Amino acid sequence: MTVVQLTPASSAPRRQLGRIHVPNVTMAHGGGGKAMRDLIDDVFVAAFDNPALSTMEDQARFRLAELTAHGDRLAMTTDSYVIHPIRFPGGDIGKLAVCGTINDLAVGGARPLYLSCAVIIEEGLDVDTLREIAGSMARTAAAAGVSIVTGDTKVVDRGACDKLFINTTGIGVIREGIELGVGRVRPDDVIMVNGLLGDHGAAILNARGDMALSTPLESDCAALHGLIGTLLAAAPGTRFLRDATRGGIATVLNEIAEASQVGILIHEERTPLRDEVRGFCEILGLDPLYLANEGKIVCAVPPDQAEAALAAMRNHPLGRDSAIIGHATDGRPGRVVMHTVFGGRRIVDMLVGEQLPRIC
Amino acid sequence: MTVVQLTPASSAPRRQLGRIHVPNVTMAHGGGGKAMRDLIDDVFVAAFDNPALSTMEDQARFRLAELTAHGDRLAMTTDSYVIHPIRFPGGDIGKLAVCGTINDLAVGGARPLYLSCAVIIEEGLDVDTLREIAGSMARTAAAAGVSIVTGDTKVVDRGACDKLFINTTGIGVIREGIELGVGRVRPDDVIMVNGLLGDHGAAILNARGDMALSTPLESDCAALHGLIGTLLAAAPGTRFLRDATRGGIATVLNEIAEASQVGILIHEERTPLRDEVRGFCEILGLDPLYLANEGKIVCAVPPDQAEAALAAMRNHPLGRDSAIIGHATDGRPGRVVMHTVFGGRRIVDMLVGEQLPRIC
Repeated sequence: MTVVQLTPASSAPRRQLGRIHVPNVTMAHGGGGKAMRDLIDDVFVAAFDNPALSTMEDQARFRLAELTAHGDRLAMTTDSYVIHPIRFPGGDIGKLAVCGTINDLAVGGARPLYLSCAVIIEEGLDVDTLREIAGSMARTAAAAGVSIVTGDTKVVDRGACDKLFINTTGIGVIREGIELGVGRVRPDDVIMVNGLLGDHGAAILNARGDMALSTPLESDCAALHGLIGTLLAAAPGTRFLRDATRGGIATVLNEIAEASQVGILIHEERTPLRDEVRGFCEILGLDPLYLANEGKIVCAVPPDQAEAALAAMRNHPLGRDSAIIGHATDGRPGRVVMHTVFGGRRIVDMLVGEQLPRIC
Repeated sequence: MTVVQLTPASSAPRRQLGRIHVPNVTMAHGGGGKAMRDLIDDVFVAAFDNPALSTMEDQARFRLAELTAHGDRLAMTTDSYVIHPIRFPGGDIGKLAVCGTINDLAVGGARPLYLSCAVIIEEGLDVDTLREIAGSMARTAAAAGVSIVTGDTKVVDRGACDKLFINTTGIGVIREGIELGVGRVRPDDVIMVNGLLGDHGAAILNARGDMALSTPLESDCAALHGLIGTLLAAAPGTRFLRDATRGGIATVLNEIAEASQVGILIHEERTPLRDEVRGFCEILGLDPLYLANEGKIVCAVPPDQAEAALAAMRNHPLGRDSAIIGHATDGRPGRVVMHTVFGGRRIVDMLVGEQLPRIC
């Protein structure tokens, strides 16, 4: 399947889009024939449509001059989304698949431009669900100013996948002069986050229903390139950014400590947590530092730019609750330590696995 | 997971690669923690390693100047591979995932450069199988001169996917002046293929074992960008290329007929088929025109360049059995017609589905 060909504008005639007239996806919808084309037209082309759209070729094409206008380096990233359930408070697998890949580009300092979308569908999935998820992807991409330019559709037999998996691969362009890296953090650099932690992990666990808690938890799933652009303008010396997804901020902090060979000291009382998430973690014995986020980044900023960075982030709708949670140290390289609210210290290690499978 | 960061060369220290000490993949290997890093290191980084490798960032980065040296347009394509079985005569899911995406770039006239690799693994898959598939991807990519630059690893619970799905997304660069499109074919253009048809489809069906035929059928799975480069050099006026995967050459011919509003006339006796595939199709009542290929392209070339194109293809190891199978006509636009060996004519329509699910 190909969804979009951007440039050169095709001289081929636009063809009539097909429609599906059955309520559920069948194996034929993945077979490369008329049925597949109808599924792609009805669900994906209808949702992702844009003026440059062509459904004709197997690859999207765009002028390199359009890219070089934005910067000097191309960034490329990929992620498959297998989250269960596919709809959850605050989002769905489609919104997540667009935001997650945008964020993986943005934390490298790239302006996200183009996404691919490859779906693996379980036979029997209802077509309306697929339309809803594609619509969610389209709205999220449009709001973020990125285009979904090419795609692929596979259908596997019942039981060979769980409803719907989505891969998005993204490309973006990094402006000249921006250099971010997990190995660039120096002692005294300030560590900050852009808001309340653990909402995504808690919301997904709660949505699975085993707990039957009535807490109104919502995923924080959001595209962060706007916030990151604001941050980098205010604090161009920023050393490193990473979205704290699987493994939570504890994992990101450990990655910094190891790669930059610094210690990291954070303060429990400065770690921003929603009361509901705190309570949820207390009931279930979870550590919120390891809970997944889908709209939160860990930032390392040189001390002289920290104030400007914090002010810029707090001015952005996705950074209102930004906080400085600690700093890098030259003692104990490779270690992350937390001052607890009780006045003690504890080591924040990397987990072996995740507290919760299929979180993204 | 990130597999490679090409440029700028990271100043971060290379770290010791982790190892897995269990025979099977567990849910922890997809959790974002130490276990996942060990899996990525042991299986993917070890296989895909190259001098510019970094395992540190969430996105690959490369200088746009390296791309603009190759041409004026970027091509981007994506495909998920869900083939069953994951090993088959002539290849495996890893080789297929690299060749398939290379081919989707190459048929647009692009020189394939970079691939992403995102895997979804079923809990319990043995790690040796995964190492073997990653090794196969690495060898295929190296032979084709492309780099696997970024990746993602997900593990889903037993029964939530079938062993292993792989998504590869590729980018490449199209040289100035090359313009290929399914809507560009004109009456009298010559239609050719680069060899014997249907090997992949027949081999997969046979490999599933239900038939218990002892025919030595092998998939034709191959990366075709070299052949295509040779063809375009010899016949720069080539109008259109497409690899004839799901749906076979019949589907590609119908796509040309519709998009270019031409008729297509092909000749059954000129359609190159291996005797084993012909026999296989006769026994099972299959039409070889609809059998999937993974190393065959349909080409439309203007008549004055057809001879040069055919000679160039036949000179290439992947085009020895190239043949002219027909031409475009101005009568019956949108229709594909075949002269049969019995002297009759029949319409070659597009199928609704595929003869065989999970063929790629």
